Amino acid sequence: MSVTYRDVIHAASRIAEGIHCTPIMTSELLDAEAGCELFFKCENLQKAGAFKSRGAVNAVFSMSADDLAPGVATHSSGNHGAALARAASLKGVPAYIVVPENAKQVKKEAITAYGGQVITCESTLPAREAKLVEVIAETGATFVPPYDADDIIAGQGTAALELVEQAPGLDCIVVPVGGGGLLAGTSLVAEQVNARVYGAEPVGADDAHRSFHSGELVTEHVPDTICDGLLTTVGKNNFDIIRDRVTDILLASDDETRAAMKLIWSRLKQAVEPSSAIALAVILKHPDLFSGKSVGVMLTGGNVDLDHLPF
Amino acid sequence: MSVTYRDVIHAASRIAEGIHCTPIMTSELLDAEAGCELFFKCENLQKAGAFKSRGAVNAVFSMSADDLAPGVATHSSGNHGAALARAASLKGVPAYIVVPENAKQVKKEAITAYGGQVITCESTLPAREAKLVEVIAETGATFVPPYDADDIIAGQGTAALELVEQAPGLDCIVVPVGGGGLLAGTSLVAEQVNARVYGAEPVGADDAHRSFHSGELVTEHVPDTICDGLLTTVGKNNFDIIRDRVTDILLASDDETRAAMKLIWSRLKQAVEPSSAIALAVILKHPDLFSGKSVGVMLTGGNVDLDHLPF
Repeated sequence: MSVTYRDVIHAASRIAEGIHCTPIMTSELLDAEAGCELFFKCENLQKAGAFKSRGAVNAVFSMSADDLAPGVATHSSGNHGAALARAASLKGVPAYIVVPENAKQVKKEAITAYGGQVITCESTLPAREAKLVEVIAETGATFVPPYDADDIIAGQGTAALELVEQAPGLDCIVVPVGGGGLLAGTSLVAEQVNARVYGAEPVGADDAHRSFHSGELVTEHVPDTICDGLLTTVGKNNFDIIRDRVTDILLASDDETRAAMKLIWSRLKQAVEPSSAIALAVILKHPDLFSGKSVGVMLTGGNVDLDHLPF
Repeated sequence: MSVTYRDVIHAASRIAEGIHCTPIMTSELLDAEAGCELFFKCENLQKAGAFKSRGAVNAVFSMSADDLAPGVATHSSGNHGAALARAASLKGVPAYIVVPENAKQVKKEAITAYGGQVITCESTLPAREAKLVEVIAETGATFVPPYDADDIIAGQGTAALELVEQAPGLDCIVVPVGGGGLLAGTSLVAEQVNARVYGAEPVGADDAHRSFHSGELVTEHVPDTICDGLLTTVGKNNFDIIRDRVTDILLASDDETRAAMKLIWSRLKQAVEPSSAIALAVILKHPDLFSGKSVGVMLTGGNVDLDHLPF
């Protein structure tokens, strides 16, 4: 492993001008319902609406002026694309975002709103990767991956760094896991303050759970879940960090996530994605683990399609 | 008029322990869309989910121990009931809330969650008032009205007091108007800082607009709007304060309010009621009035029935 807690500290200084320090929210009613003290880290209020801005800004701000000049590129059907477009705009360089043609209109609009160039392709992973290679060859842009890279992990970890400063004395932190960048970054921070870390994953995309319990990285699966931010499998670098530092990966069904999402919307008044709500879902499902504890909860993003709510 | 700016100042000290100082939120994307600088006062994050907690806490905290002992009572189909139940619980006294039988389950649950006693009655106004008189006769509780009383107006005005301190130099403040307590309290504060005040009202419940323009208080109407917090007519005391201090009462259709509500949910990630979103709706409808200005926007509450969203 090459990325460390020190890298998270450095990332926090590097990106401070380019991101929000997001607030913590609490609810007495929710605490009563959950039987523990919950500290919600509101990354739904982060720039571009998700924690992804942290890693994207850290990656872009870490690049040399020469490397940066031709711009940056990635493929994304989700929040990383908009976050990278925004990060590039802060440096005044182009961002080329390869987006599958079936991606939601709202995601494409977010990318263009931040000045990114949307390049559509077929929705298969090979088609996306081929198009990305083509774009990079044409433009000279640098690839900024969505989750399995040191700069990204260190950037995402800054969310946890703020959380443990804003809510000292946490017993544990619960983090949704898709590609695993946020979970890896959080676990680097949590071990410094002796807080346990739990991943939260949909039953219908349980690759991290299976990888964690078998010790063998699952690299292919067919996800089926409303948590559209958690469809990817865990990256290898992330898994190397996670498996020694995370206490467990807990699962929740989509129905449990829907119920948790409604609770967050109605109690905290925060619009969050299903991929965020799953963290509360696993807490409510496991009173044995969380009862009486002081629990940090990563609300990872708030980019919901209001015309297609999952409830 | 008996309630003044000084009463708002006193109310702020009195209620400080019993309410949240709510945050201001901003969005560069929303500012670009609106053509002005918007400062959203997030009373959806207020205790019990609405600014109503301010007036309710001020009324309860202003009462003598003797008057308070038998408890407080009101009739409410909305946020005032839950706010009063919570305010009473802070003083350890009972709250009797008369609720029409057709009120939403979520509203009744909110009242009981804060320790209030729900007493149902027929949904007509005479039935509600008769039941309230009966409850007060039986219990000796003190009636705390929802909007047309000095303590309430002064309490609601504290939202504006915080807003003008958090966002100095506002050109104007836009406030939804139902019974008019928040608009009256805000106008007392705004005249101290030379900010204009606009009311925002649904086309389908335009009594304040008609009263303001005719100079004659409209006391009866048949409201038809998704803004379920703005169904009542403006109170007489409130109107006396409003008519000399408010620049205009602007109207928006329910479709315009729906669009504004989606913008607030998607850009600010804040769950707000239609009765809040109407403030943004009138701003977007009147670029002639707001373009280039620094505008305070009261997001009055966030108690939405997620199973019956208006979009």
